[in-house]
Amino acid sequence: MNVFIATVQGATATLTPEESWHCAKVLRNKSGDTLRIIDGKGNSYEAVLTLVTDKKCEARITAGPFLQQTRNYNLHLAIAPTKQLDRIEWMLEKAVEIGINEVTFILCANSERKHLNVDRLRKIAESAVKQSLQSRIPIVNSLIPFSEFIARSSNSQKFIAHCSDASKEDIKTLSFANKSTIALIGPEGDFTKAEIDSALASGFRPISLGTTRLRTETAGLYVVQAAAFLS
Amino acid sequence: MNVFIATVQGATATLTPEESWHCAKVLRNKSGDTLRIIDGKGNSYEAVLTLVTDKKCEARITAGPFLQQTRNYNLHLAIAPTKQLDRIEWMLEKAVEIGINEVTFILCANSERKHLNVDRLRKIAESAVKQSLQSRIPIVNSLIPFSEFIARSSNSQKFIAHCSDASKEDIKTLSFANKSTIALIGPEGDFTKAEIDSALASGFRPISLGTTRLRTETAGLYVVQAAAFLS
Repeated sequence: MNVFIATVQGATATLTPEESWHCAKVLRNKSGDTLRIIDGKGNSYEAVLTLVTDKKCEARITAGPFLQQTRNYNLHLAIAPTKQLDRIEWMLEKAVEIGINEVTFILCANSERKHLNVDRLRKIAESAVKQSLQSRIPIVNSLIPFSEFIARSSNSQKFIAHCSDASKEDIKTLSFANKSTIALIGPEGDFTKAEIDSALASGFRPISLGTTRLRTETAGLYVVQAAAFLS
Repeated sequence: MNVFIATVQGATATLTPEESWHCAKVLRNKSGDTLRIIDGKGNSYEAVLTLVTDKKCEARITAGPFLQQTRNYNLHLAIAPTKQLDRIEWMLEKAVEIGINEVTFILCANSERKHLNVDRLRKIAESAVKQSLQSRIPIVNSLIPFSEFIARSSNSQKFIAHCSDASKEDIKTLSFANKSTIALIGPEGDFTKAEIDSALASGFRPISLGTTRLRTETAGLYVVQAAAFLS
């Protein structure tokens, strides 16, 4: 059964314009077809199409809401996008498949990539939500300067994975269960000393990610998987 | 410092023909340049180039061998290659970065991809070994029929991740420490019932990989990360 993102009011689901186009033109659904609706906030429904046009599709809810099980952890990954865009794109797809709450892209002193099409990344995240049969869409934030992210980071447990020599906690010793976690992953050239110092001063704890040297996107996904296994 | 794969005899390292080409023509190294040598078996060295031609480069060992730390688990992943080749390629790259001993590609009843250029995949594995500063190259086996793989699988602890309804052990409850593990991951259309039955009859235990539906390549990497975290 095809899955579409829609806003739900009462017994009526209205597909977003993009989803309507996809439903009508790409998948060539017809009025009367059954589909699965997700609202992006954790609810899914079964529904029957009642209106099919290129710009707007509507469906009548026939079952639901079915609530997506909540994970026992909240993970916010802040990561410098890679020079090669496809590397960060697959990281995001995989992070969403496995489970993540929020992703923020950060601009660091050593970042080679200084611009990012966040709409494209949001579409990748939405597609991964649908593909992995989830119904809650993670927040994907635009690229912001490292210093700005550090300044507004909240009271969560906060980690920074950098490659400089320093005493670090092994990620395998951490617990993510029933906690809200922010994890910082730097660019290909790593964080600068000034960035590391400023993160430490803001309460970020340095962590090590195993014994091998991981690429930026692998490090990001490693943290996502750590939360899944250590919770 | 650039890293190259070579055979080492006494104090002389001889780069493979491909590595020699890369060293001489791509990276334009000169006699006298220092480099890092790995033998693919877990040893690394520092060396100085003594001979540089397109087809053959030699170096004199100046320090080492430095032995790569052995992981406390042995993981052999048997996975059906994905229809889109880049998906299985990145899975292999990431699996090697994080740590794996052996990968076998399996041909299943529902496999859409029936041919595979294993030489290209071996190069990706070698490149990931060098990039992640390891010195042991995992074994990458050619595509073989599922039944053949099942028949020759050894006395390791053996798991199969399939999507059919059945009682399964949650991967989070397993231990990989001080064990040799084989994990089977099926194609996009999943294993057939006959394949699952035959694996179970050969001692494979069904496992579940979390609460979301993972793509084939994400499932493969999920098991690799499980071994890293649960050991």
